[in-house]
Amino acid sequence: MAERTIRMTLAYDGTCFAGWQVQPRHRSVQGVLQYALQDLHRHEVALVGAGRTDAGVHATAQVGSFRTDLSLEAETFAQALNARLPRDVRVLASAEAPPGFDARRSARERTYRYYLYPARIGLPHLRHYCWRIPRRPDCAALNAIAAALQGEQDFATFAATGGSEKTTMRAVTHASFAERESFLVFEIGANAFLRKMVRSILGTILALEDRGEGPEAMRDIIRSRERSRAGATAPSRGLFLEGVRYDGP
Amino acid sequence: MAERTIRMTLAYDGTCFAGWQVQPRHRSVQGVLQYALQDLHRHEVALVGAGRTDAGVHATAQVGSFRTDLSLEAETFAQALNARLPRDVRVLASAEAPPGFDARRSARERTYRYYLYPARIGLPHLRHYCWRIPRRPDCAALNAIAAALQGEQDFATFAATGGSEKTTMRAVTHASFAERESFLVFEIGANAFLRKMVRSILGTILALEDRGEGPEAMRDIIRSRERSRAGATAPSRGLFLEGVRYDGP
Repeated sequence: MAERTIRMTLAYDGTCFAGWQVQPRHRSVQGVLQYALQDLHRHEVALVGAGRTDAGVHATAQVGSFRTDLSLEAETFAQALNARLPRDVRVLASAEAPPGFDARRSARERTYRYYLYPARIGLPHLRHYCWRIPRRPDCAALNAIAAALQGEQDFATFAATGGSEKTTMRAVTHASFAERESFLVFEIGANAFLRKMVRSILGTILALEDRGEGPEAMRDIIRSRERSRAGATAPSRGLFLEGVRYDGP
Repeated sequence: MAERTIRMTLAYDGTCFAGWQVQPRHRSVQGVLQYALQDLHRHEVALVGAGRTDAGVHATAQVGSFRTDLSLEAETFAQALNARLPRDVRVLASAEAPPGFDARRSARERTYRYYLYPARIGLPHLRHYCWRIPRRPDCAALNAIAAALQGEQDFATFAATGGSEKTTMRAVTHASFAERESFLVFEIGANAFLRKMVRSILGTILALEDRGEGPEAMRDIIRSRERSRAGATAPSRGLFLEGVRYDGP
């Protein structure tokens, strides 16, 4: 049968994964999915993901793609793979993609959400899914600082050392905070992200708000391109990959 | 030092517990807390809880009480115990209670919430904290059925076999459903609950809604006092003890 490209929407609980990317001797989301694909195909299948989430980072709508020679209805891959996957990864949907579709290269925008839980003591059932912070920051002040991120800029300040990216230019499409029940939720979209960029940006925004500084200080920090001027990187447990946008219908 | 009674607000992730109550050879919330109390006091301390939650049931505001001979500020017990507790149990607050206070006997009302997640495929990070159901039920129809629970009635229909309660009369103060983001949340309050009563009631309401039946059918089922007329008991993972009310300020 002719090869087709399948696109999948994926959700996972990142708690027990060393991240998206296959690594020797570590449990990865990509690895677990490739095992399931191999079991289904009876040969190795390479899986591409839109976002290389780090250890402990979750996803509600990661996108993956692979090429298949199986004569299975495209929509049925979700069910066939879920039957072969551990409970902390699910294929929410599968569909045939246009020829040449690649979940990573074809992606136009990624959206992440970060859940902050301002409280003196955390709730145990949320301990792997948010970051408890001792003080409730001022949401309007956070949003004023976040606005400075908007647009195409060099985000070298927020690039983790050891990142393999060719350029540190990225286009941030939106970045804002909203109060949702007991949480403070940071949502940020960009054409692509540098490694640990969301968590480094969040740590910096919180530090600036804490010191009573505003968007001008954030602009200075971005312009400096100095890693040492970024705040402490926020822990991975509060971060979720929430969506990936592609061209076309 | 004279003995005092301490009241604590407790939160736990019920996933890895065999329930609230101490049992030989099983990890229980009460057992884990009594270990911490014993470590702090250097002798055994009996802990009373307001609600005997089952295996897998969570709490955001369970209440516990114990008597102490330690000369520690009442508010400091929370911190001292949290330092001795595993991450899936937290003491949110501690305070001195009036003499004779007993978290169980003094409680006037318990409130539970149950999180339903209507979707074809579940989200992995929520798998221990809600019940995924394949179809989205009609919220107004659920509320019409739930209204039949209101008031002081004999709830023998919903009493788990093997329950040790002297009477099956209970006073339900409120019972309703609300849509909250992707969830459908069932909240129910009563002076006290029979064992597995919330989950049995929920299973019955969902079955009635599915068959297109209304509050009159629920009234019939309650009046029958026949366990066999209740629907399937909903799984414990979606259930949270959310509050306990006492007399006084």
